[in-house]
Amino acid sequence: MLAGDCHIVMLGEAAEADILSDTAVFQGELDPPIEKTYLELPTPSIDDQRPDTVRLAESLLQERSAGQPAMMPLDVRRKLPGLLRSAGYSLTVVHNHRQIYSLQAGDTTARHFGIAVDVGTTTVVAYLVSLTSGGVIDTVSGLNKQKSFGGDVISRIEYVMREKGGLDLIQDRIRSQIETMSRDLLQKNRLEVEDVSAIAVAGNTTMMHLFAGMSPAAIASAPFIPVSLSEETIPAAELGFEAFRCPVMLLPSLSGYVGADISAGIVASGILEREKLNLLVDFGTNGEIVLGNRDQLFTCSTAAGPAFEGAQISRGMGGVAGAINSVYLEEGELFYTTIGGRPPQGICGSGIFDIAGLLISTGAADYTGRILTPEEADRPAAVQLLKFYVEENGEPALRLAGASESAGGDEILFTQKDLREVQLAKAAIAAGIDSLLHAAGSTYTEVEKIFIAGGFGNYIDTHSAVKLGLFPKDRLESIESIGNSAGKGAVLSLLSKRVAEELAQIPAKSRYVELSSDAYFQNAYIEQMYFPVIE
Amino acid sequence: MLAGDCHIVMLGEAAEADILSDTAVFQGELDPPIEKTYLELPTPSIDDQRPDTVRLAESLLQERSAGQPAMMPLDVRRKLPGLLRSAGYSLTVVHNHRQIYSLQAGDTTARHFGIAVDVGTTTVVAYLVSLTSGGVIDTVSGLNKQKSFGGDVISRIEYVMREKGGLDLIQDRIRSQIETMSRDLLQKNRLEVEDVSAIAVAGNTTMMHLFAGMSPAAIASAPFIPVSLSEETIPAAELGFEAFRCPVMLLPSLSGYVGADISAGIVASGILEREKLNLLVDFGTNGEIVLGNRDQLFTCSTAAGPAFEGAQISRGMGGVAGAINSVYLEEGELFYTTIGGRPPQGICGSGIFDIAGLLISTGAADYTGRILTPEEADRPAAVQLLKFYVEENGEPALRLAGASESAGGDEILFTQKDLREVQLAKAAIAAGIDSLLHAAGSTYTEVEKIFIAGGFGNYIDTHSAVKLGLFPKDRLESIESIGNSAGKGAVLSLLSKRVAEELAQIPAKSRYVELSSDAYFQNAYIEQMYFPVIE
Repeated sequence: MLAGDCHIVMLGEAAEADILSDTAVFQGELDPPIEKTYLELPTPSIDDQRPDTVRLAESLLQERSAGQPAMMPLDVRRKLPGLLRSAGYSLTVVHNHRQIYSLQAGDTTARHFGIAVDVGTTTVVAYLVSLTSGGVIDTVSGLNKQKSFGGDVISRIEYVMREKGGLDLIQDRIRSQIETMSRDLLQKNRLEVEDVSAIAVAGNTTMMHLFAGMSPAAIASAPFIPVSLSEETIPAAELGFEAFRCPVMLLPSLSGYVGADISAGIVASGILEREKLNLLVDFGTNGEIVLGNRDQLFTCSTAAGPAFEGAQISRGMGGVAGAINSVYLEEGELFYTTIGGRPPQGICGSGIFDIAGLLISTGAADYTGRILTPEEADRPAAVQLLKFYVEENGEPALRLAGASESAGGDEILFTQKDLREVQLAKAAIAAGIDSLLHAAGSTYTEVEKIFIAGGFGNYIDTHSAVKLGLFPKDRLESIESIGNSAGKGAVLSLLSKRVAEELAQIPAKSRYVELSSDAYFQNAYIEQMYFPVIE
Repeated sequence: MLAGDCHIVMLGEAAEADILSDTAVFQGELDPPIEKTYLELPTPSIDDQRPDTVRLAESLLQERSAGQPAMMPLDVRRKLPGLLRSAGYSLTVVHNHRQIYSLQAGDTTARHFGIAVDVGTTTVVAYLVSLTSGGVIDTVSGLNKQKSFGGDVISRIEYVMREKGGLDLIQDRIRSQIETMSRDLLQKNRLEVEDVSAIAVAGNTTMMHLFAGMSPAAIASAPFIPVSLSEETIPAAELGFEAFRCPVMLLPSLSGYVGADISAGIVASGILEREKLNLLVDFGTNGEIVLGNRDQLFTCSTAAGPAFEGAQISRGMGGVAGAINSVYLEEGELFYTTIGGRPPQGICGSGIFDIAGLLISTGAADYTGRILTPEEADRPAAVQLLKFYVEENGEPALRLAGASESAGGDEILFTQKDLREVQLAKAAIAAGIDSLLHAAGSTYTEVEKIFIAGGFGNYIDTHSAVKLGLFPKDRLESIESIGNSAGKGAVLSLLSKRVAEELAQIPAKSRYVELSSDAYFQNAYIEQMYFPVIE
């Protein structure tokens, strides 16, 4: 049974497809930093007694006709003599410019794949990428299995600090999740673990710490100190992977609250190729903001909370199948779409933007963020929207889906409290942008493009963002919604040496602006607390 | 009961002391490649949010005011945040110019020790070295516990090739032996495992392979190919050590049969500081020979067999307590000394040189290597020596110790067969020297010094070496016996960056001469088969 005039539109499949199509064919020069090189080594003789390692290193050097001989860790050297002799001195080497990571008998260069992983606090997404075509072949996503240790970053850090052995356990959880998701991708596409030449991982700073088994304890409280932020490539075994023997590329983080997901977003957005200032706002976890160009990057993290990712919203959820990902009013009727076209289970980030934007732009909620009762409404659009007004525990709410049409059998509401969460988050982010512009000695007029990124499945509607007052109305044309830029950046890092180098250079170009001690930010935060007044 | 006129002289203690005194105080500039640096880091604040790793790396760089920031492996980074905060940001770093290996709370720079290990096929020797004074504090030695898998290099390689899991087992055996010997040294000297900042290991190429867990299978047969020869520093954990968390320096090998023990000997002998050609002959395992100066090194390995190390000699043994290590005839009486002054158990290398040299120089054996019967002897010295003539299974032999005076209750004989082993070994080594001189386009007259090295406890008598015809009589004054040069070189590598750098450069300066396919060597070998004719 449909609630009121609300119509279900099955656009969910399109939303899923979007995620793929953006990266389905890589546009730049395909030049993966982790390479596969096939070598036919000269066989040893009494006149050529070079050790196995030297024989291999010199052949690789010759084939690539440049650079330094690649390092060979002990486990690779242990494998080498047996493999060389059983494979008749023909083998394929998985390597980058610094190190050899694994060896395979014969020519396996055609089986060359990568897995890019976006480790969100809420949602983990893994992309299977062909390193020979540049295409994203398949994607899988799921809730972060660390959730049982705490829903947000701080509660997971507290768990690590509280429980002996907690760090190992929580590290094990995410590693085995990535391993399971990767195996799923491989099985569905009839590939073997040996076909995976590289794994790239991006996530916020705490997720990166937990994945690497480094304690994020000092990130939780002032002065917010991480253990390590640098990009690096680590053999999978060193991170505890059982099946994989490939390198794992950890993207660089920029501060305790500006993580590798943002570095990935920076390369995905293309800011580093632009001369003019550009803005990147990521609604993924908190609200992380980047203002910069090819020379310099200002970054900050606002304590916006994960409202825009669906957390702290009564019916909020991650951008996975069954999430309401867009809501719109058309000819007096309320429509929504869900990811995967499934019966709705809750609302994800882009849906939250839309419904909050509708409440404000129709006047169904006033600029102070109060939802009107149907009796109070006078504007026609507000009256139309408030047809779906209900009350829950005496508080105003809007009903998006009735009990009978939802997957869980419960009504899906957007409540007054939810709008308050959005309001606080909006204030934090808008004030964060003001603070970065101030730190850079710049203004909105100097900003060329505004990229807005959300978690997996969250292509935020640019109009909704403007309706909420996140960006000035007159900059609507400059705004571009780029979806899950963390995942895209991780995919790009597998495909392009240039991107990998850009990533490595990001920390040196960045200046992190700490907002918690910034007086300018405090003022801006209070000023930005109101939604736009509609004329 | 003493046999005949044979006297026991308790000089063994002196022999043991010799081993220490040579390295007891290091003469060069004390500048260990593995350093301990104490740092007091600035505490973090909202104005100094550097990650723990950057804070540490920058302080270390500042303290040393040179070079690149040191790499920090994942296990060090995992330890860092807890240690920093519990130690109030004061810590000691164990590092070299490339990498940080471990961290200790507070100032532990006064507790800075190394362990140098000479892994012989027969005997393993460990030296406890103070890295603050340069002194060798203590030494412990024992039979190589891999012996149960085979007495020599080839039989151990065959074991690895034959038995599944054999490589792991044989690696485990030597690692746990080194661990046990090191713990003994520490316990005796009231030190802790944390006080060990570095371990240096030298041994022949097969021993180095087995210690690193790399299969030496292809070394066993032509064209004799090792897996890897390069010098390197590996964290102890990567080699499977349980207690130690320090770096392990593996000295470089030069070919399948010229190992890290020879590289160590090269630095211990000082050849690399000399302008003129010098010769180094190591009687440790086979007979490895080096001819060179500071610019170039020619090396070879002769298939001499380990006779001079005591193996393949009927009463042969390693240079450990109870071994007869010198034999001499004085005023018609036969004297011997044992290591540690203990009742004799067998004969070690230097004793074998002496008794064989005596047989030849007295004329008790002729230049063809045949031991005369007392009836055949006419020279007075031969008659004196042949007072100890006995027969065993119908073969001539010389009795060094009677059943009652020996530790095992058996007579200690040197047999005709033993002399044949020495004869073959002598021919191989003398021909090897000829071949190297030929390869270098040089002659004995251009050789400045001749260094002769033996295994642990084997200070070979230079006169005995000349008596056997290993070197020309007129070069006696140029010969210097340097004992266990492998152990000394390993000790030196712990104490001096210059030595460590010299070691690293040895492979590039070396040319290995493969004798198995060398026609010149074949001729020389036949020519050198005879002992010198006495006038």
